[in-house]
Amino acid sequence: MSEKIIVFDTTLRDGEQSPGASLNVFEKVEIAKQLEKLKVDVIEAGFPVSSPAQFEAVKRIAGEVNVVIAALARAKEIDIKTAYDALSQAEKKRIHTFSSTSDYHILGKFGHERYGRSLEEKRKTVIQMSYDMVKYAKTFCEDVEFSAEDAGRTDLAYLSEVIEAAIEAGATTINIPDTTGYTMPFEYGNKIVELKERVRNIEKAIISAHCHNDLGLAVANSISGIQNGVRQVECTVNGIGERAGNASLEEIVMALNVRKDLFNFFTDINTAEIYNTSRMVSGFTGIVIQPNKAIVGENAFAHESGIHQDGMLKNRETYEIMTPETVGVSKTKIVLGRHSGRHGLKSRMIELGYSLKESELDKIYEAFTRLADKKKEVYDEDLRILMGDEIYKEENHFELEYIQVNSGTNSIPTATVKILMHGKEYSDSSTGDGPVDALFNAIDRALKIQFTIESYSVRSVTSGRQALGEVMVRIRENGLSFTGRGVSTDIIEASAKAYLQAINQKMIHEKEKKSLHENESLNEAV
Amino acid sequence: MSEKIIVFDTTLRDGEQSPGASLNVFEKVEIAKQLEKLKVDVIEAGFPVSSPAQFEAVKRIAGEVNVVIAALARAKEIDIKTAYDALSQAEKKRIHTFSSTSDYHILGKFGHERYGRSLEEKRKTVIQMSYDMVKYAKTFCEDVEFSAEDAGRTDLAYLSEVIEAAIEAGATTINIPDTTGYTMPFEYGNKIVELKERVRNIEKAIISAHCHNDLGLAVANSISGIQNGVRQVECTVNGIGERAGNASLEEIVMALNVRKDLFNFFTDINTAEIYNTSRMVSGFTGIVIQPNKAIVGENAFAHESGIHQDGMLKNRETYEIMTPETVGVSKTKIVLGRHSGRHGLKSRMIELGYSLKESELDKIYEAFTRLADKKKEVYDEDLRILMGDEIYKEENHFELEYIQVNSGTNSIPTATVKILMHGKEYSDSSTGDGPVDALFNAIDRALKIQFTIESYSVRSVTSGRQALGEVMVRIRENGLSFTGRGVSTDIIEASAKAYLQAINQKMIHEKEKKSLHENESLNEAV
Repeated sequence: MSEKIIVFDTTLRDGEQSPGASLNVFEKVEIAKQLEKLKVDVIEAGFPVSSPAQFEAVKRIAGEVNVVIAALARAKEIDIKTAYDALSQAEKKRIHTFSSTSDYHILGKFGHERYGRSLEEKRKTVIQMSYDMVKYAKTFCEDVEFSAEDAGRTDLAYLSEVIEAAIEAGATTINIPDTTGYTMPFEYGNKIVELKERVRNIEKAIISAHCHNDLGLAVANSISGIQNGVRQVECTVNGIGERAGNASLEEIVMALNVRKDLFNFFTDINTAEIYNTSRMVSGFTGIVIQPNKAIVGENAFAHESGIHQDGMLKNRETYEIMTPETVGVSKTKIVLGRHSGRHGLKSRMIELGYSLKESELDKIYEAFTRLADKKKEVYDEDLRILMGDEIYKEENHFELEYIQVNSGTNSIPTATVKILMHGKEYSDSSTGDGPVDALFNAIDRALKIQFTIESYSVRSVTSGRQALGEVMVRIRENGLSFTGRGVSTDIIEASAKAYLQAINQKMIHEKEKKSLHENESLNEAV
Repeated sequence: MSEKIIVFDTTLRDGEQSPGASLNVFEKVEIAKQLEKLKVDVIEAGFPVSSPAQFEAVKRIAGEVNVVIAALARAKEIDIKTAYDALSQAEKKRIHTFSSTSDYHILGKFGHERYGRSLEEKRKTVIQMSYDMVKYAKTFCEDVEFSAEDAGRTDLAYLSEVIEAAIEAGATTINIPDTTGYTMPFEYGNKIVELKERVRNIEKAIISAHCHNDLGLAVANSISGIQNGVRQVECTVNGIGERAGNASLEEIVMALNVRKDLFNFFTDINTAEIYNTSRMVSGFTGIVIQPNKAIVGENAFAHESGIHQDGMLKNRETYEIMTPETVGVSKTKIVLGRHSGRHGLKSRMIELGYSLKESELDKIYEAFTRLADKKKEVYDEDLRILMGDEIYKEENHFELEYIQVNSGTNSIPTATVKILMHGKEYSDSSTGDGPVDALFNAIDRALKIQFTIESYSVRSVTSGRQALGEVMVRIRENGLSFTGRGVSTDIIEASAKAYLQAINQKMIHEKEKKSLHENESLNEAV
């Protein structure tokens, strides 16, 4: 009998912790709905206590998406209570709480005497906190997950004690995170085997793997875990996450799928939605997918060398262990045009995974007809890129009203801009080293600001010369990064929009910070 | 006693087979020199019979770089002879020949009756060919590697027979490629164990792993191979290669390095050169590195969440299993400026891995002073990006003489260009949907051409608003892609340069095709 592996997606929590990847509430809800379509079992929607925006996102997702919704909470009452509040509308809720268990983490984070004077005392404190807080979480809901942070580097005897306490307190899922991406696959597998031997009542909980990719082994570790008793994998779309990211959902799922001859495991994932989900996450987070990324990279199914092409023509299976269609990459691109109409657009957007309200559809349709006037053929990727650019504007402070740019080999690049903010106009002009530099200088002058530009990138997603350009600008201030995105067939206009959106993000952040009662500083995570 | 693992780098052969990643001879030699500095043991420099450019690159590298240089050859006399000719100037040469061994490949590629009528007969033919061609290669040099293509999907009994024949013929290295990225780590490891049990005289050869990343497991498979008897790993910088690429050199090396507590293996790699090598390969191939790529991604050592940052401040080891410095990522950016002078530039370029002739240094210095006039601070990444743009121009047909671009919200984007080709001038103007579209249209009109633009991307590598922009343009014609790169502080100028360079690449390819005596079509690879 084949056994099911629970897919716990943490794109919206651990994935969103990727530097520069902040998602707004609208984007998070869209991604959550797509994850539901992908048929993940659990969505970790955020860390509610950490900010009002996180709270709001978890709350919205809990109300709109019908899979198990998990919310992260440190082993503190305030975190657990807040997580539960955010989850209250979910039909299936899970509180996910955690403690740090490796000596590195215990000494690094519980240095204060109030946690005990010796390492031994501090370790005991952690066990007690874990037990108490799982118990507390159980007063709110039945489904409680406990994670032993940095389990990968935690002494096994101590790890067993912590886990035993969590299970005794009622944890229904026990997560063994390799937080720093340190373990080797055989080692991670052995750890699971040993825990199964040592921990009393371990069979009362589902064992979960949460592997990071610092040495490129997150997927292999997850699979080794599965072979040795893990029945839930925590993973992210495109493998995004802190540092080198988390185990990639699509790679784990497809490894089990392609090698079903070898494994007696399955997931409920609808693999045909993998590509759509991957593109949506990349588009909203702005985290590019390298061409050689397994399963979802641009080249994952491309065969370049004459040699391979020849082999492919003779026999597809020569170099292909799965078809592109299995993961939703279609060779025949579906094309819309100016005559496609509102209904045609709507059904295509739904197929691409977006679930739009009528008012949102109105905006997209307007943008679509504008684009279809310029481009004869509107591709899926064009539609993906319109999303987010057109939909989510209510919070914007600054909007672009007018730009004019001149540049060339024998002239000094010059830009003029006019920007609107709540009806007020700001305009100025400037020169620069190139048209984009001139443009940013003009915006700075008009708004009397100056930011460090951390990165600037442009990509055109569709082929053809009228392709939409997507510009991402990341600005930095006081150690924080803010990313803006702009879309246009005109790269200069897209640059202006992206820069303004980054500035808008910064404004939103400041408003939020002011409204947030000074929460004690966060000092733990999985 | 710790055992050495031989690092066989195939960035210039398998890596260069990545779609869109064609490298010119100059770039290949620069990368090979950097690989020497990285202290790889073997460089697979190319596949000499496949084109005159490949032959030339192998020949140049053989003459200039002092590590073992390998050249690929099918199991055919012409391939082996050509490989040897290309290698003739190398102090340490290796001929790397291969046969297809899985039933998929044998049926797919040796379908013709002349290879035998039944699968059984064809299999015998492959054994005979392998034996004969290793023998033939041995008449040229002592160091001969044999690969059993698609060994990952080859029946073990048959695989053992082929390998036994190759060893009997004198192969000194036996490579077990998982050509389609199909195997699981435990399975790949078991395969090595079984081969060691079954194959007579296996101890006379070094066993090599060559793993592809279709399921995200190439690195884990290589490590599992090492644990079970593999003593050479074939890998690429940044994990580039066909489809989802090859095992990533930096991940394998750092896994063995970080976990020396666990493994009794070492490599000779100078890890401090990893970052330089990674950036050079990405710059020359145009294959971006995703931010969450292990070891070399932009975020690999970044700690975003307040939580993690707090932990990091308290104790570096909380979330860091290796320091960025170990792999050559330095926090303190070294900055050059207009007063740095030729000598300062030269020594910095050498530190970054580039080995320049005086005439090349002249060109870079000129570009550097032009840039330093615009930007106060010139960073390492600026210098990296100047390379390749400035150095390798002799083959260019078209050069940009003049551009002028106007665009804005209330005007029709318009571009005018003047292009030089061998002294002749071509100029024209055009409108477009944006300034870049107008520009490309103007170039098309001037040169009377029209290509499909497959992709267009821009990135600014350094921070700050006067950063250099690097534009990559990929054009497509008759199923082949050509990539051009352009660099400038002006994004429009960079776009024009990149488009012209892509066109130049296409011209070079056509010249080459004409000069090549019609070689029989290539129908195999590793």
